Amino acid sequence: MTHATTVWQANRSGGLTGAEALIETSLAAGVDVCFANPGTTEMPLVAALDSVPGTRAVLGLFEGVCTGAADGYARIAGRPAMTLLHLGPGFANGIANLHNARRAHSPVFNVVGDHASWHLVHDAPLTSDIVSLASPVSGWVGTAASGAGLAQLTARAVVAATAAPGCGATLIAPADFQQEVLEAPVDVELPHPRSRPEVAADVIDAIAKRLRAGERAVLLLGGAALDERGQRAAARIASATGAVLYGETFPAAAERGGGLPDLDRLPYFPEKAIEALAGAQLVVLAGALEPVSYFGYEGVPSLLAPSGTVEVLSTPEEDGALALEVLADALGAPEPAPQPPRPDDEGLPDGALTPQSVGRIASAMLPEHAIVSVEGGTCGYPFFTASSRAARHTTLTNTGGAIGQGLPAAAGAAIAAPGRKVVALQSDGSAQYTIQSLWTMAREQLPVVTLIASNRAYNVLRTELGRHGQSRPGPGATALTSLDGPAFDWPALARGYGVPGTRVETGEALRRELGRALAAGGPQLIEMAL
Amino acid sequence: MTHATTVWQANRSGGLTGAEALIETSLAAGVDVCFANPGTTEMPLVAALDSVPGTRAVLGLFEGVCTGAADGYARIAGRPAMTLLHLGPGFANGIANLHNARRAHSPVFNVVGDHASWHLVHDAPLTSDIVSLASPVSGWVGTAASGAGLAQLTARAVVAATAAPGCGATLIAPADFQQEVLEAPVDVELPHPRSRPEVAADVIDAIAKRLRAGERAVLLLGGAALDERGQRAAARIASATGAVLYGETFPAAAERGGGLPDLDRLPYFPEKAIEALAGAQLVVLAGALEPVSYFGYEGVPSLLAPSGTVEVLSTPEEDGALALEVLADALGAPEPAPQPPRPDDEGLPDGALTPQSVGRIASAMLPEHAIVSVEGGTCGYPFFTASSRAARHTTLTNTGGAIGQGLPAAAGAAIAAPGRKVVALQSDGSAQYTIQSLWTMAREQLPVVTLIASNRAYNVLRTELGRHGQSRPGPGATALTSLDGPAFDWPALARGYGVPGTRVETGEALRRELGRALAAGGPQLIEMAL
Repeated sequence: MTHATTVWQANRSGGLTGAEALIETSLAAGVDVCFANPGTTEMPLVAALDSVPGTRAVLGLFEGVCTGAADGYARIAGRPAMTLLHLGPGFANGIANLHNARRAHSPVFNVVGDHASWHLVHDAPLTSDIVSLASPVSGWVGTAASGAGLAQLTARAVVAATAAPGCGATLIAPADFQQEVLEAPVDVELPHPRSRPEVAADVIDAIAKRLRAGERAVLLLGGAALDERGQRAAARIASATGAVLYGETFPAAAERGGGLPDLDRLPYFPEKAIEALAGAQLVVLAGALEPVSYFGYEGVPSLLAPSGTVEVLSTPEEDGALALEVLADALGAPEPAPQPPRPDDEGLPDGALTPQSVGRIASAMLPEHAIVSVEGGTCGYPFFTASSRAARHTTLTNTGGAIGQGLPAAAGAAIAAPGRKVVALQSDGSAQYTIQSLWTMAREQLPVVTLIASNRAYNVLRTELGRHGQSRPGPGATALTSLDGPAFDWPALARGYGVPGTRVETGEALRRELGRALAAGGPQLIEMAL
Repeated sequence: MTHATTVWQANRSGGLTGAEALIETSLAAGVDVCFANPGTTEMPLVAALDSVPGTRAVLGLFEGVCTGAADGYARIAGRPAMTLLHLGPGFANGIANLHNARRAHSPVFNVVGDHASWHLVHDAPLTSDIVSLASPVSGWVGTAASGAGLAQLTARAVVAATAAPGCGATLIAPADFQQEVLEAPVDVELPHPRSRPEVAADVIDAIAKRLRAGERAVLLLGGAALDERGQRAAARIASATGAVLYGETFPAAAERGGGLPDLDRLPYFPEKAIEALAGAQLVVLAGALEPVSYFGYEGVPSLLAPSGTVEVLSTPEEDGALALEVLADALGAPEPAPQPPRPDDEGLPDGALTPQSVGRIASAMLPEHAIVSVEGGTCGYPFFTASSRAARHTTLTNTGGAIGQGLPAAAGAAIAAPGRKVVALQSDGSAQYTIQSLWTMAREQLPVVTLIASNRAYNVLRTELGRHGQSRPGPGATALTSLDGPAFDWPALARGYGVPGTRVETGEALRRELGRALAAGGPQLIEMAL
């Protein structure tokens, strides 16, 4: 999984600092984007970004922007970006989106500056337990103990981050070791390109046998199996066996539209998901985890599939698309005739906007190969329903439930894929957690069109209050789930960050403004009043 | 330290739920403000805020607003507010300001909803290691194991939070226990009012002896010793012995102006602080910790006082003001003649704004008993220099160095002290971390005037780059320390959150707009272009 190299620039007269060795190693390992919100203890690394050229440094005004962007970047690029964060509190501001990245299996390489090692014992104001904060969202945590160690642990961190299925790896970099001048070359073990292990033949055979025997089956696709190959192979299996197809509810990145099979997502609420799986004798997981209820509700089972029906075709780290193809071949499933796209040409809806009309308009107007970062249920579900008829695109969703993921992921995806348009379909409440993302979009002039579903409420919480028997919430519960009083002025917020913004109330206006925004070069925001 | 009570409403027919018992206990313990950003797993608690009346629930759009507001509230009210946060990721968004609260010794009571206990094993998307995240910023962490446990641990958490000198206490509240209906009354141990232990007489005697012997002394005041009594007693000691007075660099809450002694803060950069303490044979700590360098710099000692000179008069938990009074009496230091205020009446500066003119104008126009939340060095240090001539006021500073503290602390302070005007003197970069605070100010119509020092740069990082030999930063370092391209439109951001905002470039305009803003009832924002 690794190969050796040496970090040393022969023509560099004064030798490398630990910070420069970190950046050189990171570049050698293929990491060339850094989402940064640095402070004093990262200044040698900031200087090293100039003295060792090759890394694109992108400033976020808030650390959650950096980590969410690194997650979005990884989902599209398939390789890690670096984040550069300031001690425990700076890292903590990035945890929520690292939680989402963890659930997405995104490779992310976090570098956290710490006090000089000899200064820690004095418990200065910013001293903090970074390991305790980092562990819950990191598959790997390491603290460097020398300048050379910064290079060696950088390589180890990137190896850990990129090992399938991907994880966050956090390197703690004391300031003194960043400044240390290395006296000798450093050998590091760099990662090989990411590869996914193949599924064993007997696993595929056993499932093929049960499908051939006519068991009523559901195929649940997730992770990398939601790419084009995986979906096409799953459709062959479905047509040969009658198996029902679902995608996981919140995929990290799923291909959709352009004639791909219309794969439903497994429903969010457990009663509906249990209903969807109720008749199955066999639930086959391809890259998806066993489906569990998002929250625990009294009297509702946590596990959604009927007991004893679940079989794993491929884990998230395995090559699920290949396993589906081998399974389809084993079943003798023919290649289906290519499905032509079925664009939504029935006349797009006019009049007052609804979540359904937003979903249809956004789907129909999506440019080829767009990336859609979806956060929030209000327009997210209707968009998904409509988007099977859209041009081919990639959908990113909130994998971990920590809100504030959609805008930074859109920014990171735009940086990963120059030339692709990005649409952030975003609920108003969740947009507020990382609103500062708009500024990064403006500074980097990213082609991101942000569509704000403005219903001025935490609507999902109103629904949840109803589930708790509070169908008529009292004044306290109403206040805590309302975003009115005052309503946000979204065009003003956008302008405040240098993003042109406008507000629409009808289908006609949305079509006009979305067309204009998609044609613009840089970021745009449209508030959709619902 | 505690007394018993029983949580039970005899006239409640159906019995209490665990969530209701938590709120009842919290109210009985004197906690009646809740800064909330709840999610699904907190819905029973949200409903309980209505069914058990008496708690003021204040919504934050982002968790860092809630925790920063709870810190500001505690510094002014001297007692804890509750925060209500959603699982690990929601808590994580509040960590940075809980770090500051920890360094301020602020009592804060955090309640974090978690999954139903029986659902945790299934590792649903939002499952997270809350204990690992909470421990670095909590003096006490507990997880309830029943509905009755929610009441009992609430009492224990508030006792822990309010024990001098105060700390954050975090209660993890599984959703099933919030919903559980209690079958019997619950006995809980409630906190007594916070009291500070007195300093032992021999400690005071020993220091008095050294002062009488003529040792060159510095008195460093911090924590609660920076109240009016502590400062006046310290001034007596100084006039009787020639001791030099300093306040700690970043106090949680310090009285100032209105004829109080003009106590300098110990300088921020270590070389200056070492210089300030260099001649001392005795450095007496009253409520302050031993001064250490904020960051470790190569070749500069971490400990700032000369070796062997430090003596503790009072720890942060002890009654430092009383100890200073006893010490002053022991030295026979006379009560000084009351110092009349010396208002800055030399004509306030016109023309282009500078940090110095901002400091003088803000000081001179400060209403009596204002609270000033200061974050950022640009105008913070010049304001402090000028503010000894201001009307009596209370200054809150960023105690822990996690930026994004000033705006939410201002909001929390305003809620703690109705009738007092609050000024948030705030640097532009740090304001962005918790910019959503403006909306809470608008919703609650808090009398907070936010003054944004708009220099469009992370200026402290430019200084730090200079200290690392990068006096001419390269393009990467320039980009990562610049907030231009695009510049924020602060009046637009304010308007986006429902706060009237304006922009000034001269002393005349600042005086006019600040006068108008202080006369207004609700929140106002003024961008000061520097």
